[in-house]
Amino acid sequence: MKIFGDKGSGNCLKVKYTADALGLAYQWVDVDILKGESRTPEFLAMNPNGQVPTVVLADGQALSQSNAIIRFLAHKTRLLPDDPFQQAKVDEWLFWEQNSHEAYIAGARFQRVYLGRPASAVPEATMVRGNEALDSMERHLALSPWLANAQSSIADIALFAYTQFAHEGGFDLSPRPAIRGWITRCAAEFGVH
Amino acid sequence: MKIFGDKGSGNCLKVKYTADALGLAYQWVDVDILKGESRTPEFLAMNPNGQVPTVVLADGQALSQSNAIIRFLAHKTRLLPDDPFQQAKVDEWLFWEQNSHEAYIAGARFQRVYLGRPASAVPEATMVRGNEALDSMERHLALSPWLANAQSSIADIALFAYTQFAHEGGFDLSPRPAIRGWITRCAAEFGVH
Repeated sequence: MKIFGDKGSGNCLKVKYTADALGLAYQWVDVDILKGESRTPEFLAMNPNGQVPTVVLADGQALSQSNAIIRFLAHKTRLLPDDPFQQAKVDEWLFWEQNSHEAYIAGARFQRVYLGRPASAVPEATMVRGNEALDSMERHLALSPWLANAQSSIADIALFAYTQFAHEGGFDLSPRPAIRGWITRCAAEFGVH
Repeated sequence: MKIFGDKGSGNCLKVKYTADALGLAYQWVDVDILKGESRTPEFLAMNPNGQVPTVVLADGQALSQSNAIIRFLAHKTRLLPDDPFQQAKVDEWLFWEQNSHEAYIAGARFQRVYLGRPASAVPEATMVRGNEALDSMERHLALSPWLANAQSSIADIALFAYTQFAHEGGFDLSPRPAIRGWITRCAAEFGVH
């Protein structure tokens, strides 16, 4: 398997963390999106949307969308329960991450870290919604060690990826002890250093 | 099963269309989010994020996130292939819908139709990204009758739900014949009138 990605991108790190946690062999290919490396004809042939991460499996077939990729890699492993309802509880977090978390938590960080802009460049609505997302996680993690069901899963990997960098976007985790404890647990559970 | 939703919301209609296409019995409970009906203590006990759609299954367990719900309902049916890689191709579209389509296509419509605001109230970036999403669908549908794999699936239901209303957000489908043909096919395939 080849993973085309950027090691500073949480979406790409989700794939790395899942492959590493499962002991899957892969070749990592660095792609610099700011240099247009995801918009070359070769890249667009793999993924017409020009997004990272994109993986090419051993049989040559390509797959994109971070959460679709990790869900595929985790099929029939300890990181995704077999029971359909428990899978759906994992899926709730995977979709919530894409519609209610990533745009704000990763979006603010992209402005600050990737584009080097000041805090004032991040729209107020982005910060409000990002803080709402973190509050939602804090409430849940105060009651449960993992996000979905009783075991760790790709739901934790998907949310950990950008939440660990939330401070880089200007979000404050210090009043959120449940999230901080969970970040430490995730790093140990998934072997992230 | 009870479906708590708003029949003007594409996210809620995805659940209705999937249940109807599969012939599943359900009770529909109208929820008016603008009147705060998704923020009552009773509703928050089902879904702490206060979002529609939310379903309560026959055994009393609740599930939220439209795409997680339809994925669960479609398990082992003609609307979701059994093969893991083909499932992942469906998942690509489900996650893409949430991160690259819904925020713009549904977001513009929400401003115009739900909040009654003028076109000028919709940020230019929302229109640019919504048009990019439609262009991406048009390119794909010019080559393939359905979004994922060779058969119709919940990927088509998930994208059809808001794309059918794209014009209400100010997006022009007239120069996009492949999308228009697919909308007609989806309506027939899923029994939407």
